[in-house]
Amino acid sequence: MRTQVVIIGSGPSGLLLGQLLSNAGIDNVVLERVTKEYVLSRIRAGVLEEGACAMLEEAGAAERMRLEGLPHDGFDLTFDGQRHRIDLHGLTGGKRVMVYGQTEVTRDLMDQREKTGGKTVYEAADVELHDFDGDKPYVTYRKDGVEQRIDCDFIAGCDGFHGASRKAAPASLLKVYEKVYPFGWLGIIADVPPVNHELIYSNHPRGFALCSMRSHTRSRYYVQVPLDEKVEDWSDDRFWDEIRRRLTPDAAEAMTTGPSIEKSIAPLRSFVAEPLRFGRMFLVGDAGHIVPPTGAKGLNLAASDVRYLFDALREYYGEKSMAGIDGYSARALRRIWKAERFSWWMTTLMHRFPDDGGFGQKIQEAELDYTVNSRAASVALAENYVGLPY
Amino acid sequence: MRTQVVIIGSGPSGLLLGQLLSNAGIDNVVLERVTKEYVLSRIRAGVLEEGACAMLEEAGAAERMRLEGLPHDGFDLTFDGQRHRIDLHGLTGGKRVMVYGQTEVTRDLMDQREKTGGKTVYEAADVELHDFDGDKPYVTYRKDGVEQRIDCDFIAGCDGFHGASRKAAPASLLKVYEKVYPFGWLGIIADVPPVNHELIYSNHPRGFALCSMRSHTRSRYYVQVPLDEKVEDWSDDRFWDEIRRRLTPDAAEAMTTGPSIEKSIAPLRSFVAEPLRFGRMFLVGDAGHIVPPTGAKGLNLAASDVRYLFDALREYYGEKSMAGIDGYSARALRRIWKAERFSWWMTTLMHRFPDDGGFGQKIQEAELDYTVNSRAASVALAENYVGLPY
Repeated sequence: MRTQVVIIGSGPSGLLLGQLLSNAGIDNVVLERVTKEYVLSRIRAGVLEEGACAMLEEAGAAERMRLEGLPHDGFDLTFDGQRHRIDLHGLTGGKRVMVYGQTEVTRDLMDQREKTGGKTVYEAADVELHDFDGDKPYVTYRKDGVEQRIDCDFIAGCDGFHGASRKAAPASLLKVYEKVYPFGWLGIIADVPPVNHELIYSNHPRGFALCSMRSHTRSRYYVQVPLDEKVEDWSDDRFWDEIRRRLTPDAAEAMTTGPSIEKSIAPLRSFVAEPLRFGRMFLVGDAGHIVPPTGAKGLNLAASDVRYLFDALREYYGEKSMAGIDGYSARALRRIWKAERFSWWMTTLMHRFPDDGGFGQKIQEAELDYTVNSRAASVALAENYVGLPY
Repeated sequence: MRTQVVIIGSGPSGLLLGQLLSNAGIDNVVLERVTKEYVLSRIRAGVLEEGACAMLEEAGAAERMRLEGLPHDGFDLTFDGQRHRIDLHGLTGGKRVMVYGQTEVTRDLMDQREKTGGKTVYEAADVELHDFDGDKPYVTYRKDGVEQRIDCDFIAGCDGFHGASRKAAPASLLKVYEKVYPFGWLGIIADVPPVNHELIYSNHPRGFALCSMRSHTRSRYYVQVPLDEKVEDWSDDRFWDEIRRRLTPDAAEAMTTGPSIEKSIAPLRSFVAEPLRFGRMFLVGDAGHIVPPTGAKGLNLAASDVRYLFDALREYYGEKSMAGIDGYSARALRRIWKAERFSWWMTTLMHRFPDDGGFGQKIQEAELDYTVNSRAASVALAENYVGLPY
């Protein structure tokens, strides 16, 4: 088989890239290791920047988001027993974010891909990337026990942190930067109305808490827990008691509780691989970088990577120019590092750190006080949260 | 002997407080452990916020500063081989800073104190603070071998980090927060014209460098060095070579070198004691808190402490109200912690850290890139540098 671009991974970055390429008449195949159902069972983030929403529009997959997504003009920041609203819309001159689950984005992109005849191979096992340092790369995989090969011009590695693409990059060329945080997030989903119409981020002596949502009837809540915590030790009741303790009394009072339909603990990590291009192979989204979820930047960074890569590929096929291809890594990384910085900053600002000896916590308090009371600092928070320009 | 306020320490905070009190008709005595000449031989900071300048005016000790001080409207930030100007004046709606050495401030305040008949006891040995938890505090010391005692209403501890005042605070009530940085500053003074009419802060792979000045003909330069570095190992030539390597070529080229008239290595430390009031004793300036010098906040925080304490004492003597006295610690600490945060942030942003594993340095680069390219982030830097409101 032959195509122009092989895309490895059918998460939102792979599907978004594939759809944009297909719309531009550039042939592509998506290879996915697991089943469609498994992909759609994964729970992920749910806050989209306007740039990401615009790309879903461009891909023709934004109709349901427009109907069901919840535009948010701000969020609450709780610390020292007080709630402060961060007016994203006012502070950024009219920008907002869209609350719409990543699973829904993936589903919409899958539907659009099927509707427009894009090719996706599910359960493609043992994917291997070949000869991308030359002009004739190809990808091999097994499907139903049979070895397959696709020749192509380019390979887009959209297969996440644990995928094959980054592992295929020559170790001698790859540099990685990493920070692991000394805590995790215990998260639940419950079919109860959200405690607030906007998100609440809470810095509390017992640890960070976040009240998020998927819809008007489905809530997504998190509490910071030690890394060695076990999800089995957390009954729903214990979770509800704990999160309410970390909110202001008015929020704790307003919270509707109910049985969880998902409950898990995730570690927090910052990670960046450099570069993001190896000859004719590119790393896109989580394959190249991870942010802690505090700033809701993971999916949005995947979207900006796709923006840069799609523009580069369109330029290549349209004008036979390698300029965009050559510039992809540096261009994407510049925005990635700013989002890494913001995610690290917000994580450091909002969590309790076990070993900071008191000084770090006082700095947190001073920074929160400064952030909500300085217009410049509030704007800096807001402009990062809604997303820096592409 | 009896007075209303005993001030321990004749650095700028003690002298400024004393002068304001004297001007308001509140009797005070300054006790200084060493000689006047020794006090005036100490080399210290030299960037004053407008609030500190206004207090020197109020004290009647600003005449020479007005003539000889250098108002600065901005500074340069060097990183990644580029120089960027931070337009303090434009970013803050018209604020600036004044470059005028702390030694000169001290000299002017001493002159004014002598002119107006204020009492200072130099070489006051073995100062001890007594009974400040009750209504009748007193201070004892030895002068020329003779034990002396001054009864008073209040004691102002303006005697610096190593002074007697903080040590006199009951350990059970005192909480300290501290961070020691893994490097020092090697600084020189030389009678050569400054390389630039404004300060240059440089983030460089070899370490931080700062080009500052005392006048049009006297330069103050610093380079980051490891903590175990010895000043004897640094000839003038080695220093000049090193600082030029850490600047952009245009600045290195423009630098005039010459023999140093002072050369020393200072460690960097963040330190805050809480509270700053113990009954009728107050901690003011370095006696209560230390910042690393990166943000030039040490002397300026001493000035804002004096602002709050002078207002409180004037209120006490004028209206017999304890409200200002009761509020001093919390009011001063709120501003102190914001300046501690800024000084910690700028120190973390500008220095090489030996053990950051690469991630921290990339975050630095992203933050510098963001800081100079985002208006909000530039304003946040500038408004802190010129000084947050009292």
